[in-house]
Amino acid sequence: MKPILEVAESIGIAEKYLELYGRYKCKIDLSLREDLKNRPDGKLVLVTAMNPTPAGEGKTLTTIGLAQALNAIGEPTIAALREPSLGPCFGMKGGATGSNKAQLMPSEDINLHFTGDLHAITSAHNLLAAMIDNHLFQGNALQIDSNRILWKRAMDMNDRSLRQIVVGLGEGNGVVHESGFMITTASEVMAVLCLSENRRDLRERLGRMVVAYTMSGETVTAEHIGAADAMTVLLKEALKPNLVQTAEGTPAIVHGGPFANIAHGCSSVIGTKTALKLADIVLTEAGFGADLGAEKFFDIKCRQAGLKPDAAVLVVTVKALKYNGGVPRGELDKPNPEALQAGLANMNRHVDNIRKFGVPVMVAINHFTSDTTEEIRIVQEQCARLGVKAELSDVWARGSEGGIELAETLRTMLRRESSRYAPLYSERLGIREKIETIVREIYRGAGIRLNAKVEAKIQEFERQGFGHLPVCMAKTPSSFSDQPNLLGAPENFVVQVRDVTLSAGAGFIVVLTGNIVTMPGLPKTPGAEQIQLDEQGEIVGLF
Amino acid sequence: MKPILEVAESIGIAEKYLELYGRYKCKIDLSLREDLKNRPDGKLVLVTAMNPTPAGEGKTLTTIGLAQALNAIGEPTIAALREPSLGPCFGMKGGATGSNKAQLMPSEDINLHFTGDLHAITSAHNLLAAMIDNHLFQGNALQIDSNRILWKRAMDMNDRSLRQIVVGLGEGNGVVHESGFMITTASEVMAVLCLSENRRDLRERLGRMVVAYTMSGETVTAEHIGAADAMTVLLKEALKPNLVQTAEGTPAIVHGGPFANIAHGCSSVIGTKTALKLADIVLTEAGFGADLGAEKFFDIKCRQAGLKPDAAVLVVTVKALKYNGGVPRGELDKPNPEALQAGLANMNRHVDNIRKFGVPVMVAINHFTSDTTEEIRIVQEQCARLGVKAELSDVWARGSEGGIELAETLRTMLRRESSRYAPLYSERLGIREKIETIVREIYRGAGIRLNAKVEAKIQEFERQGFGHLPVCMAKTPSSFSDQPNLLGAPENFVVQVRDVTLSAGAGFIVVLTGNIVTMPGLPKTPGAEQIQLDEQGEIVGLF
Repeated sequence: MKPILEVAESIGIAEKYLELYGRYKCKIDLSLREDLKNRPDGKLVLVTAMNPTPAGEGKTLTTIGLAQALNAIGEPTIAALREPSLGPCFGMKGGATGSNKAQLMPSEDINLHFTGDLHAITSAHNLLAAMIDNHLFQGNALQIDSNRILWKRAMDMNDRSLRQIVVGLGEGNGVVHESGFMITTASEVMAVLCLSENRRDLRERLGRMVVAYTMSGETVTAEHIGAADAMTVLLKEALKPNLVQTAEGTPAIVHGGPFANIAHGCSSVIGTKTALKLADIVLTEAGFGADLGAEKFFDIKCRQAGLKPDAAVLVVTVKALKYNGGVPRGELDKPNPEALQAGLANMNRHVDNIRKFGVPVMVAINHFTSDTTEEIRIVQEQCARLGVKAELSDVWARGSEGGIELAETLRTMLRRESSRYAPLYSERLGIREKIETIVREIYRGAGIRLNAKVEAKIQEFERQGFGHLPVCMAKTPSSFSDQPNLLGAPENFVVQVRDVTLSAGAGFIVVLTGNIVTMPGLPKTPGAEQIQLDEQGEIVGLF
Repeated sequence: MKPILEVAESIGIAEKYLELYGRYKCKIDLSLREDLKNRPDGKLVLVTAMNPTPAGEGKTLTTIGLAQALNAIGEPTIAALREPSLGPCFGMKGGATGSNKAQLMPSEDINLHFTGDLHAITSAHNLLAAMIDNHLFQGNALQIDSNRILWKRAMDMNDRSLRQIVVGLGEGNGVVHESGFMITTASEVMAVLCLSENRRDLRERLGRMVVAYTMSGETVTAEHIGAADAMTVLLKEALKPNLVQTAEGTPAIVHGGPFANIAHGCSSVIGTKTALKLADIVLTEAGFGADLGAEKFFDIKCRQAGLKPDAAVLVVTVKALKYNGGVPRGELDKPNPEALQAGLANMNRHVDNIRKFGVPVMVAINHFTSDTTEEIRIVQEQCARLGVKAELSDVWARGSEGGIELAETLRTMLRRESSRYAPLYSERLGIREKIETIVREIYRGAGIRLNAKVEAKIQEFERQGFGHLPVCMAKTPSSFSDQPNLLGAPENFVVQVRDVTLSAGAGFIVVLTGNIVTMPGLPKTPGAEQIQLDEQGEIVGLF
């Protein structure tokens, strides 16, 4: 690893803008963006993917490898990525920082406490919860209905026992009511931090968050509770983007990591905009497949932040295509050209969808050793038929070298094709119409179904003045539909809208189409049991 | 503020041992102590106080001011202090970093997230809780009794609603049982971190923590749960001591801050021992008054760590002496020589107690503007009668200048009087005899009272092989007795032992003599409502 000061210097950031966190991590002061405001922005490229499968598609890996390759061919590039959550590291998955020759460094630090952003979000979230319950205990001047407290608590840990709890038991311990914990990445505070333009915007958004209803049905906000300023204080450092590097010393801004279902799943606006001032090309990613991640990136993040994406890279794998063509999980390593052909329908639809936003798109085929030459040729031929460039990516094994063609093709596309980006739907559509537009245009379903209670909530949100907000779809990532087993490119399904909730601070209406778990559990044998320090005090067993 | 690198250089720490957290905070690598192991230790001085009163005695303030003054008279001195908890900053109290000309800098940072140590402790604590509940959910191979889970959860926030809760409600959400949250500083993980000699010791202590009982009454430890290694990983950075500076640039190692009732209330052993290698004099403090803080410092911290304290400074104030002489809180500013005389009994006993440990002691009279010359003279005359040096300290108003006499007197004492430190009681005494010794010798009570259930627990701990552990008294800090209103120097009281609990990782038996609240609540108007960022992004309203 290079000292992070050297990485910062390589993109022209003076030391005065940096706060070091050890030798290899730092935060960038918000004044840098202000000082560079007259500098032109670089090109913004979204790396997204086909529907995710148990095999793993390597979207983060490809983003990192491609950023390395672009630098290798002389295009100054920064990766603007999400920061991982600590809790899941002790459950099943490894890190969220790429791997082998296309990974973020120092990966253990980034996956664990990093620069404390998630801890700060947890603190801010729980301060608000404590102040709400204290308000109830101290006389309840706002007449909050203890059965209608929307604001739960947050913890960056996989702990299913905290999903549904009763608090306030025992004499002098407050007002008894139901509550629960979500993992910190699912907190609206995380979404707010990621969508905020600056400190003032953060402060205003926090104040707008709806936390409860009164006995007479009025909304209570964090502003009413008097918590928004203190929360902003707790988030003062967390709002500053983090700078780290990849395995090849490519600069990476790693900042913010909201859930990709009940939130928009993109790294921070501040991080993205800072990167755009510092590089010719900025690669960023969005959660899950393009049906969720890219749609929200375009319709929520870019719309709110006034960002204009210049291109998109769709990551596919031969394995995931076969899986979408009906091959079961255990047989993905075997050649199966027929299933692959069938699975291409999934890719086709994502390509078509991205084009609906007016954004030029190319395909990256993330290479696995089990892929056959024939299989790769089949994918490339299909891309040719779609009129979309496709390149094989081998960044896991070879780092930037394995991404040179990909980088060159992207560069050519950025030079030749210009983006006519526009969101999919107008803010002026009603909430129901927005949902229907996404289901029809992106998921390609026949329509939506919702019960009277959900209809009433939608009407209430519109009456309260939230009808202009974009919608944030919470749906299974495995399928275009709301049913995880409908692989490939399903049609004629009806999406069941089970609930809608308001994230007034983040600025979207969450549309729940399934049972979304916002607090994961640990598996039978938690990964934690294998994680330890070795004799030299280095972490082993984390990945 | 000086850059922290400059402060570090001033005490001879090479940059390679430092991890910066911004410009003004850093962590010191554990290898420094190893590399300096042949260097002689400096002198260790405990700053303690008479029984605390609502007026505030300024123990931390005096420690900081005295460290500044010692440096001013040419004695290289480091203050080794506790790090504050974030939660209470949003409740009633201001910071825990001294104030005005005798404070730690950067005080806002230190009081809020600092270098993330408390967040790491919270994470480690809650990982263990999640793994225990996951064990129950995944088949409960250890046959843990869900009604006898001792390990609760932790949060660094004042939230009374979380004191007593029910977790695991709802289908698929684990096993329903009672639980609760304590504030992070009350976690045994904090005590363990503070008493650990090194990484290996930390790992072993974490494994020894008793977290539950099985159906057949056997103890279950963190080792059984398989959590100790992963917890050590989470605490990897938190174990490294933090270096900051005082308002005058005096180096301060601020590390660890356990509760002073259910834990021992002293800063970390690693921090103290590191400081002893770097300075001629190290000032450290312990929680509450000397009856709790000094006793535990001598009997738990120094005994476990093999530290040999060279002197003690007892902080008194005219106000606190009057309060102990019967003056009500609102009238402490009025001269009252009679009440002052009566209150001196409190000071006398603390001086006598410290001498019982074989440690030379002097008195620091922390000056308030309301003190009259006569009142100060009365205190000084009493000290002369006790044969103890007393100096007026005015470090709040004047910084080091206000502590010169104090510093010179301490220096003289360190040169002339040598410590014959020994703990109060032998490890070989039974648990009950240890408690009785403290009550008789330090509190000066007539004896203890305990019911059959507590007696049975004591016998059980002894049978389990924990009889050799020192005891950690949890008692009101306001009185020598277990009744907060018995001020001055009460006698003939009987201390009621309500419960005993085992902190096998920290290495002590906690003796509860009252109702100890381990999770504070917020007041009617939380301080949080006044805390905000100003236009420049600086924190205002925190103190």
